[in-house]
Amino acid sequence: MKHHKPTHECGVFAVFGHPNAAVLTYYGLFALQHRGQESAGIVTATGPNTPFVRHVDMGLVSQVFKAEDLDRLKGTRAIGHVRYSTTGSSTLLNAQPLMFSTGRGQIAIGHNGNLVNAAVLRDELERRGSIFQTTVDSEIILHLLAQPNGTSSVLAGLRRIQGAYSLVIMGEREIIGVRDPFGFRPLSLGKLEGAWVLSSETCAFDLIHAEFVREIEPGEVVIIDENGVRSEFPFRQERRAFCMFEYVYFARPDSIISDINVARVRTAMGRELARLHPVEADLVVPVPDSGNYAALGFAEELNIPYNHAFVRNHYIGRTFLQPTQLIRDFNVRVKLNLIKEAVHGKRVVVVDDSIVRGTTARARVVNLREAGAKEVHMRISCPPHRHACHYGIDFPDPEKLIANQHTLEKIRDYLGADSIGYLDVPGMVRATGQDESKFCLACFNGKYPVPVDPNVDKFIMERRANRS
Amino acid sequence: MKHHKPTHECGVFAVFGHPNAAVLTYYGLFALQHRGQESAGIVTATGPNTPFVRHVDMGLVSQVFKAEDLDRLKGTRAIGHVRYSTTGSSTLLNAQPLMFSTGRGQIAIGHNGNLVNAAVLRDELERRGSIFQTTVDSEIILHLLAQPNGTSSVLAGLRRIQGAYSLVIMGEREIIGVRDPFGFRPLSLGKLEGAWVLSSETCAFDLIHAEFVREIEPGEVVIIDENGVRSEFPFRQERRAFCMFEYVYFARPDSIISDINVARVRTAMGRELARLHPVEADLVVPVPDSGNYAALGFAEELNIPYNHAFVRNHYIGRTFLQPTQLIRDFNVRVKLNLIKEAVHGKRVVVVDDSIVRGTTARARVVNLREAGAKEVHMRISCPPHRHACHYGIDFPDPEKLIANQHTLEKIRDYLGADSIGYLDVPGMVRATGQDESKFCLACFNGKYPVPVDPNVDKFIMERRANRS
Amino acid sequence: MKHHKPTHECGVFAVFGHPNAAVLTYYGLFALQHRGQESAGIVTATGPNTPFVRHVDMGLVSQVFKAEDLDRLKGTRAIGHVRYSTTGSSTLLNAQPLMFSTGRGQIAIGHNGNLVNAAVLRDELERRGSIFQTTVDSEIILHLLAQPNGTSSVLAGLRRIQGAYSLVIMGEREIIGVRDPFGFRPLSLGKLEGAWVLSSETCAFDLIHAEFVREIEPGEVVIIDENGVRSEFPFRQERRAFCMFEYVYFARPDSIISDINVARVRTAMGRELARLHPVEADLVVPVPDSGNYAALGFAEELNIPYNHAFVRNHYIGRTFLQPTQLIRDFNVRVKLNLIKEAVHGKRVVVVDDSIVRGTTARARVVNLREAGAKEVHMRISCPPHRHACHYGIDFPDPEKLIANQHTLEKIRDYLGADSIGYLDVPGMVRATGQDESKFCLACFNGKYPVPVDPNVDKFIMERRANRS
Amino acid sequence: MKHHKPTHECGVFAVFGHPNAAVLTYYGLFALQHRGQESAGIVTATGPNTPFVRHVDMGLVSQVFKAEDLDRLKGTRAIGHVRYSTTGSSTLLNAQPLMFSTGRGQIAIGHNGNLVNAAVLRDELERRGSIFQTTVDSEIILHLLAQPNGTSSVLAGLRRIQGAYSLVIMGEREIIGVRDPFGFRPLSLGKLEGAWVLSSETCAFDLIHAEFVREIEPGEVVIIDENGVRSEFPFRQERRAFCMFEYVYFARPDSIISDINVARVRTAMGRELARLHPVEADLVVPVPDSGNYAALGFAEELNIPYNHAFVRNHYIGRTFLQPTQLIRDFNVRVKLNLIKEAVHGKRVVVVDDSIVRGTTARARVVNLREAGAKEVHMRISCPPHRHACHYGIDFPDPEKLIANQHTLEKIRDYLGADSIGYLDVPGMVRATGQDESKFCLACFNGKYPVPVDPNVDKFIMERRANRS
Ligand SMILES: Nc1ncnc2c1ncn2[C@@H]1O[C@H](COP(=O)(O)OP(=O)(O)O)[C@@H](O)[C@H]1O
Ligand SMILES: Nc1ncnc2c1ncn2[C@@H]1O[C@H](COP(=O)(O)OP(=O)(O)O)[C@@H](O)[C@H]1O
Ligand SMILES: Nc1ncnc2c1ncn2[C@@H]1O[C@H](COP(=O)(O)OP(=O)(O)O)[C@@H](O)[C@H]1O
Ligand SMILES: Nc1ncnc2c1ncn2[C@@H]1O[C@H](COP(=O)(O)OP(=O)(O)O)[C@@H](O)[C@H]1O
Ligand code: SF4
Ligand code: SF4
Ligand code: SF4
Ligand code: SF4
Ligand SMILES: [Mg+2]
Ligand SMILES: [Mg+2]
Ligand SMILES: [Mg+2]
Ligand SMILES: [Mg+2]
Repeated sequence: MKHHKPTHECGVFAVFGHPNAAVLTYYGLFALQHRGQESAGIVTATGPNTPFVRHVDMGLVSQVFKAEDLDRLKGTRAIGHVRYSTTGSSTLLNAQPLMFSTGRGQIAIGHNGNLVNAAVLRDELERRGSIFQTTVDSEIILHLLAQPNGTSSVLAGLRRIQGAYSLVIMGEREIIGVRDPFGFRPLSLGKLEGAWVLSSETCAFDLIHAEFVREIEPGEVVIIDENGVRSEFPFRQERRAFCMFEYVYFARPDSIISDINVARVRTAMGRELARLHPVEADLVVPVPDSGNYAALGFAEELNIPYNHAFVRNHYIGRTFLQPTQLIRDFNVRVKLNLIKEAVHGKRVVVVDDSIVRGTTARARVVNLREAGAKEVHMRISCPPHRHACHYGIDFPDPEKLIANQHTLEKIRDYLGADSIGYLDVPGMVRATGQDESKFCLACFNGKYPVPVDPNVDKFIMERRANRS
Repeated sequence: MKHHKPTHECGVFAVFGHPNAAVLTYYGLFALQHRGQESAGIVTATGPNTPFVRHVDMGLVSQVFKAEDLDRLKGTRAIGHVRYSTTGSSTLLNAQPLMFSTGRGQIAIGHNGNLVNAAVLRDELERRGSIFQTTVDSEIILHLLAQPNGTSSVLAGLRRIQGAYSLVIMGEREIIGVRDPFGFRPLSLGKLEGAWVLSSETCAFDLIHAEFVREIEPGEVVIIDENGVRSEFPFRQERRAFCMFEYVYFARPDSIISDINVARVRTAMGRELARLHPVEADLVVPVPDSGNYAALGFAEELNIPYNHAFVRNHYIGRTFLQPTQLIRDFNVRVKLNLIKEAVHGKRVVVVDDSIVRGTTARARVVNLREAGAKEVHMRISCPPHRHACHYGIDFPDPEKLIANQHTLEKIRDYLGADSIGYLDVPGMVRATGQDESKFCLACFNGKYPVPVDPNVDKFIMERRANRS
Repeated sequence: MKHHKPTHECGVFAVFGHPNAAVLTYYGLFALQHRGQESAGIVTATGPNTPFVRHVDMGLVSQVFKAEDLDRLKGTRAIGHVRYSTTGSSTLLNAQPLMFSTGRGQIAIGHNGNLVNAAVLRDELERRGSIFQTTVDSEIILHLLAQPNGTSSVLAGLRRIQGAYSLVIMGEREIIGVRDPFGFRPLSLGKLEGAWVLSSETCAFDLIHAEFVREIEPGEVVIIDENGVRSEFPFRQERRAFCMFEYVYFARPDSIISDINVARVRTAMGRELARLHPVEADLVVPVPDSGNYAALGFAEELNIPYNHAFVRNHYIGRTFLQPTQLIRDFNVRVKLNLIKEAVHGKRVVVVDDSIVRGTTARARVVNLREAGAKEVHMRISCPPHRHACHYGIDFPDPEKLIANQHTLEKIRDYLGADSIGYLDVPGMVRATGQDESKFCLACFNGKYPVPVDPNVDKFIMERRANRS
Repeated sequence: MKHHKPTHECGVFAVFGHPNAAVLTYYGLFALQHRGQESAGIVTATGPNTPFVRHVDMGLVSQVFKAEDLDRLKGTRAIGHVRYSTTGSSTLLNAQPLMFSTGRGQIAIGHNGNLVNAAVLRDELERRGSIFQTTVDSEIILHLLAQPNGTSSVLAGLRRIQGAYSLVIMGEREIIGVRDPFGFRPLSLGKLEGAWVLSSETCAFDLIHAEFVREIEPGEVVIIDENGVRSEFPFRQERRAFCMFEYVYFARPDSIISDINVARVRTAMGRELARLHPVEADLVVPVPDSGNYAALGFAEELNIPYNHAFVRNHYIGRTFLQPTQLIRDFNVRVKLNLIKEAVHGKRVVVVDDSIVRGTTARARVVNLREAGAKEVHMRISCPPHRHACHYGIDFPDPEKLIANQHTLEKIRDYLGADSIGYLDVPGMVRATGQDESKFCLACFNGKYPVPVDPNVDKFIMERRANRS
């Protein structure tokens, strides 16, 4: 029995002290939608001893909240969450924020990241009598927070969890923001008309005209209540390990992370890539939109013309029907169409942020070939993905990662490209202007900042299977 | 903050060992629909270490389950639940059966009744670190069952709860039926093609052609697993206290309880009522459908003609819109219309099962008067309701019970009837053919079989309010 | 190609001159719900040159109209419609009232009945260039009303149609009620606070506290506008032919038709039946609810005890799921359950209004036998159904009518009853207190008041099939 | 009363002779989604004398069609439609394709364009007895096609209509494609595995791997049936008047119109614009996505760096909620966010395709200013819009067009830009490589290829208002 499935990329948002807390959170989630399209939710509160109000549902933010839902979400405090999952097993039950009643009153939580000791904690909690309704890590965290450990129990609870987590927690009197000691996932603090705002990315501040105050530090616990904002640093200090893949792909280009704009980093990655793997060509085309900035940097560095030869269909949600009588590569083609005459007879460099399985990249190359491109050179603005992510990004199993299984030459061959070039780790790091030691690079180099002992989890799962 | 709202009348059903467990449960809930129209749910299982499947939603059984839902509910075991609530605060979250994962594996539960020590238990559990997502008693029971109390922990958990409860519980290896030691709510065992069936009422067995085996005893815990059915009696023996109001009103007339058909009891109540409060009249009319059998008994006893002068609209659900531009007494009239000429110029006895607030009864009398009835005699087939029920029937607050506030003469006057007559406790008991000591009669006589200490609960609630 | 499917039983309602026209119509349709459960609709208007508002949908009245729908239905005039269809092909497109724009302005129509010359009219209209979007007769009538025939064109249009029709029509300046010259279907006029009301049945007046003024005459066209009510009689006079089956089964028992209450007629039918086919028995049980009054009359006439041995499930809509893994006779059993002990060992007379295919009646007899009834005597309060209805009641094809195919003895044998007795035509007519010449009795005796030439229709349909 | 509202931009698609006609049409509509996001529909047919199947609903293609809908849409022929409307009054009733039954059998139609003599035709038809259910031009066309005018009646009907129309019509035996004699709207023919395909734009062929055969000629009627494709040219020859705005904005950049790729035309417009209104600047930024190609052309021509400083939110549908507590310019900001540091301290040229009201353009300039741009130069890749479009593009009323009301200097001032430059007509035409005489340029220069006599329509509307 599969009791527990890791959660994946998500976005969190929170408001403290604004008459329209729910509406602001609705806007904020809108701006964070790229971090999770599967479900969305908001929990609001008015103050101690008044019931929290919760509305969560499957779907995009624009589908989940109707006018009457926002009307029902009364209160001056709110936390919100968007959740991403590629799997079908995800259900309404697992949608966040979760909300429970505990010995300390009501509590709600939204979580972005992934706990590496989830199975151990859950097993321990169940043995002590806890019962679980969902399969998301947030519920484990809530159980820990509710344990009767004396006064500073929230901090005690938090110290038990390991892995990646940016959390927003709403209690009866306060909203708490937490970033794990490694700082895997982003979390920032903003200010708007006397109210405080927390958001996974700064692009959400822009939308609501909030002022970006600062990033929450790795290992920082920010407590916002009627008295203002204060911080605690309850964790042992750890090395930094910000997820490099946020810069490469995941974050929105208009966000600022560690004082650097994401688009700027991506453009710099494109330049580094051009220097590492230059090529003589007539045209650089991005795979939009994730490849746009790197492609532009690449084109500028080598002074090759740039063009939007791939046209992105504006109406691609994640929910279109894939009829059984499927047109060959429909789901790849429907998203992007190629302007054939733009590439016909040309030597084309196609730039994307990353290659995972390789199937989409291959379809793009076939596309270009069919359109008459004379040469096709694939350039990727990060190093090959060879390892699993245990910190909240949902890659396929390593054996499905093309770079885990094959040499570069084999990959080039499979894609049908004339040449292939990946950015290397030093170049990628250079593009950020920061030190390599600040980053998690595990999916690229296999060095995991927080150890994951697969045996522990396996042992627990087996015990469970035999238990009943 | 209102953390906890008592649950009310419900119906439970279970199947063990049938290839179509979900479909049978669907049928069973259909037959138990009168016990709860607010939400319906089914949880199925295939055996140990395979995931339980759950489908619950707000609405009638016919609305909640679509073909694909029943298809998804795979397994040879199932428990089902229909839930009733008059309040708007009831939500999907509280719909049953509840399903959780615990240290002993998955567990699901459906509950009919009301715990009198819910607040105490919940408070204690929360202080020990339990967190609650719903406000229904079932979640408390699940937490108790999940506590690490050694071997016979299910029984240990059950011993902690006080009040009225007929439960169906599904674990990884078995289905358990429990009836509280007082036997407040009904629960019966049936058999169908080698499968075992549990149901709140026997009318559900008729629908699925199951054989009615026997009633579960008060205080009995029936465990059904691959080895068959066995019973435990883990509770201290208590006096019997079957809810008399099930006979009077709640149960379906075609059910059998304590070996007596409910319609027969109701007819006998009508006869007793006729003997106690005879009247010279031209016509007996029931308030359909709950007054039908008593009216018939009354008419036969006094040899007065009987007629269906009130016509019941077949399409009355609980969900029709009540436009703001409301027609006077629309919601009363829409359910029953009076055939005026049937009562015009006649001395009419109108028989109903009970009077709660008095507003509906009054509307009926007004109706009869307007139609030209010469005399209107109100007869009620149970004694006046003067006290609250703490065991799962959702009466209004005592101060809203008309008989709690007013003398018989005042009630007659308010209703505008020429005479009024309630059945008395001895007559009501006689109609059942059983001994008075077997029954709970608390809402009639104020003698509560299980004590309810309002102070305890009040104390806890206050502590909670101050806590955070 | 099946261009045209006859429409079937429906209910119509209209209000002229009331600020809450839509709400009143909503109530009215609620009371007429038994005449059609498939779709419901309302069209409202405020006066000339303002747009009509329409809301129609599949489902019961309670499902079709939400608060915001009624809010949108502004105006002091309204017509409403409930539609019945047993076939799956019925769709939203065919839901009424229909609403069109014509050379005379906007027009909306609701129709109860069936045109016998629909195919001829439609063919003629299509040849003249009309185009049709629905397959309901109402659209044909609207086309006729819109033809440019000079001044009195509405009446000219109406003169072209043949068959059964009670219509409510809303134009820009008036509401028109029409009853066909034979008077097949009921239609009555009421009054409420200065507003005028039209309804298929009088039971709808009771619900809204409207005063029943009079029945619309066969062949009468009632025009209600700002100046009041006036009548025209544009049709050649015809014999009367009120549908007897309205008294027997279709109309609600609390309605008044031709100055007689329907329940009274049904009770009298039961008495006539008792005189025609008396039997020595211990118990009379109705098949509820359509058999209730006849059963009561039967029981009283022969002085046999009466009991509600069949219990009707209150939650039977027409929409419950019939799982593929079907329990034997589920759809028959789920509606009524038998109280076995009420009939065990007894000689039972079971009374219903009519037998169509015989399958349901047979299931009831099997039920009674299984419960241990010593004898089962089937009594039916109308004569055997041997012929099709072409005037708006949806019987199965004649070859599926059990009485069309088999002798009484064969029917009795098939049902498994000890005896069977149908009421005869004279007794049925006597029960109404009216003259036989006033009625359509075609489905009983094959004498069709309005001729139906099947060849004409067949010819047209064939021409169509070959046409394109 | 507003009987008639002009229809606006739409997309049409058709398939003849493919086993998966509905699925191909579904794909085709997906690729045409930018031409209409309000409703979508498909009608399929199997051959003569079998019923057409229709599924239409409000919403995007991905929302309208579920797997079961496509399953129901059986047949080897299909026509599809996407419809755009900015107004709230648009309803399901008006969704296309329309489907009716006529004297010639079933017929369905999808229409892109706008008739200029719709009111006259409708008035005439209504006077002859036609009745209308919708307010879309397609119903008028169907009525005309259904008139009994002798043999070549489809062509006779088509000759009556004036204005812009690209039509797909499905009869019982054939699919017909029509392009009005002026050729306002695009329509192309494609081929796929022996089946024929019609589409508003060629980008839909790419998606389904269909081969682009040729454009339908202005004034051509293409009839596709079992015998293949044949053409008729029933109209008087007219001057060409292809809508220039399709090149500028409406069509997808990957489509080919008149043998030229749309993106290429747009890039050339950007170059022309750069030559006409050069500027010294540090950065060119497009208003994505409609400004992308022109911006690129502009940047290349003047050799100024280009960057995606505006980031487009991928999840902007047309259906997001705009809470009443609206954040200033939310609906403008939510679509695009600006990367502030990318423009800070720079002289920025911002390029968009067109300015209508000016409010959005102004918000972009404010955005750039707030981000610290040193100079903001607005460049527009078409001439100022000063006149209404009567041929199917839904501009606001002329008095709301900023260029209709104000001088260039006033516009610049209102926008807050340092300079403003529009492309001129000659440059725009040059960018297409075609002759000016081939185009409709009415919204730019006020020269209407097909006269619109507002008096005629006004007269009819008044007569209507007085009629009833
Ligand atoms: N307007 C934009 N321009 C460039 N990049 C964007 C834009 N919007 C989102 N992104 C980036 O692109 C990512 C989405 O990549 P995209 O190529 O659109 O889809 P996919 O996930 O299929 O690659 C986002 O996570 C974000 O980092
Ligand atoms: N067919 C029936 N005939 C008689 N009594 C019925 C029937 N169906 C249900 N009942 C009884 O009537 C109760 C419902 O009462 P009813 O009068 O219909 O509604 P209300 O709850 O408004 O009084 C049920 O709980 C049941 O005991
Ligand atoms: N409350 C009622 N009492 C008696 N007859 C009723 C009542 N309500 C409706 N009817 C009659 O019974 C008919 C419905 O018959 P019923 O037996 O309930 O269903 P069925 O159509 O399956 O026979 C209605 O058309 C109406 O004439
Ligand atoms: N991927 C794309 N790249 C560039 N232009 C596009 C793309 N997709 C659509 N378009 C063009 O942009 C138009 C939509 O413009 P856009 O700026 O996205 O929205 P708006 O209508 O608000 O201006 C489409 O009609 C089309 O011509
Ligand atoms: S493993 Fe890769 S994706 Fe995961 S946190 Fe580290 S850098 Fe990010
Ligand atoms: S108090 Fe009344 S309703 Fe409650 S259990 Fe006792 S008898 Fe039943
Ligand atoms: S044939 Fe029968 S059902 Fe039809 S109208 Fe005549 S009496 Fe009524
Ligand atoms: S007026 Fe403008 S938008 Fe309309 S058809 Fe002509 S060019 Fe196109
Ligand atoms: Mg991408
Ligand atoms: Mg009742
Ligand atoms: Mg019946
Ligand atoms: Mg644009």
